[in-house]
Amino acid sequence: MIKYPNGASFNKELKTEKRKSKKDKLEVSLSAANRGMDFEKDINISNEYYRDKGIALIYKRPTPINVVKVDYSRGALITNAYFEEQSTTDYNGVYKGRYIDFEAKNTKSKTSFPLANITKHQIAHLKAVLLQKGIAFFVINFEKYDEAYLLDAQYVIDFYEHGERKSIPYEVFKEKGILIKKGYNPRLYYIDAVDEMYFN
Amino acid sequence: MIKYPNGASFNKELKTEKRKSKKDKLEVSLSAANRGMDFEKDINISNEYYRDKGIALIYKRPTPINVVKVDYSRGALITNAYFEEQSTTDYNGVYKGRYIDFEAKNTKSKTSFPLANITKHQIAHLKAVLLQKGIAFFVINFEKYDEAYLLDAQYVIDFYEHGERKSIPYEVFKEKGILIKKGYNPRLYYIDAVDEMYFN
Repeated sequence: MIKYPNGASFNKELKTEKRKSKKDKLEVSLSAANRGMDFEKDINISNEYYRDKGIALIYKRPTPINVVKVDYSRGALITNAYFEEQSTTDYNGVYKGRYIDFEAKNTKSKTSFPLANITKHQIAHLKAVLLQKGIAFFVINFEKYDEAYLLDAQYVIDFYEHGERKSIPYEVFKEKGILIKKGYNPRLYYIDAVDEMYFN
Repeated sequence: MIKYPNGASFNKELKTEKRKSKKDKLEVSLSAANRGMDFEKDINISNEYYRDKGIALIYKRPTPINVVKVDYSRGALITNAYFEEQSTTDYNGVYKGRYIDFEAKNTKSKTSFPLANITKHQIAHLKAVLLQKGIAFFVINFEKYDEAYLLDAQYVIDFYEHGERKSIPYEVFKEKGILIKKGYNPRLYYIDAVDEMYFN
């Protein structure tokens, strides 16, 4: 039995959840997926802004695809392929000559960022980036607070490898991370946070 | 009529070529394609070596694929997709904290590297990398000499934008580039050339 600081309200939420119909649940999870997608979109739009202004050059890595079959009679049409697991992070690029590498995730949790969707390949990749003295971090959006934080990858690696539970408490982001200013364009002023963390 | 320094032997080659059957020609071009593929493979194997030894962290960017149709009833099988033109370069990563970005090409030419297979998007990308003070270069393999050169991207940009002909003479590589040592593992000691060009 896990103790929650706000056990009572957690149980209340759970009961409310149980009353919901299957259709409602589906809508809830789709909407959560959308918020995750929206956050990714915000990062992509911010990257476009930074690229257009000549401030930073950051790209999203494409999801790796294993191509099994190509129909050359139809102009190299791929007819059989499947998505592969991303073994690196989602974003990399260059800012002020330095190599930048990061992963961006949205979470619905109010209390912590769960490490379940970070793979051991990604952890190995981030360690390799740090070994090469690259700049590596996470951008985590706590959607319930509408707060996004930049947290250096070393914290994530430490929690992943030595943490008692497979999540990073919200407080760690507040204490060790940098709150990213949000706006209209760029949506996320995350390069300001990079400046504050790595160039000051 | 273009004058070649070795016009006679060029004509001789041309005549020999003409005598070849269609099948022979196909074999010639396939073999050239294979040499191009072999060179790409050499770069990839060298990158693995550098990664494994903790010397540099360089990845090949996947060819972008536009996914049109996914069959979720068959485990997210991609049934309709097509390759898109690479708008950046093939390789990027980090070495000694600096951002590294390069394109690798094999050429059959003895006299110059033709710019026909470099796109304007790639040139724009390389200019953006240089603007961010990243390290950007080309690795060009002259297969007829079995010589690979590292040449800073600025030369390629200049020839692309202001050159009279759409190619870079072999002499430019010899004078302004760095000859890359070849071996068994890594196949290409191109990080040594990066050291010589950018870190000395």
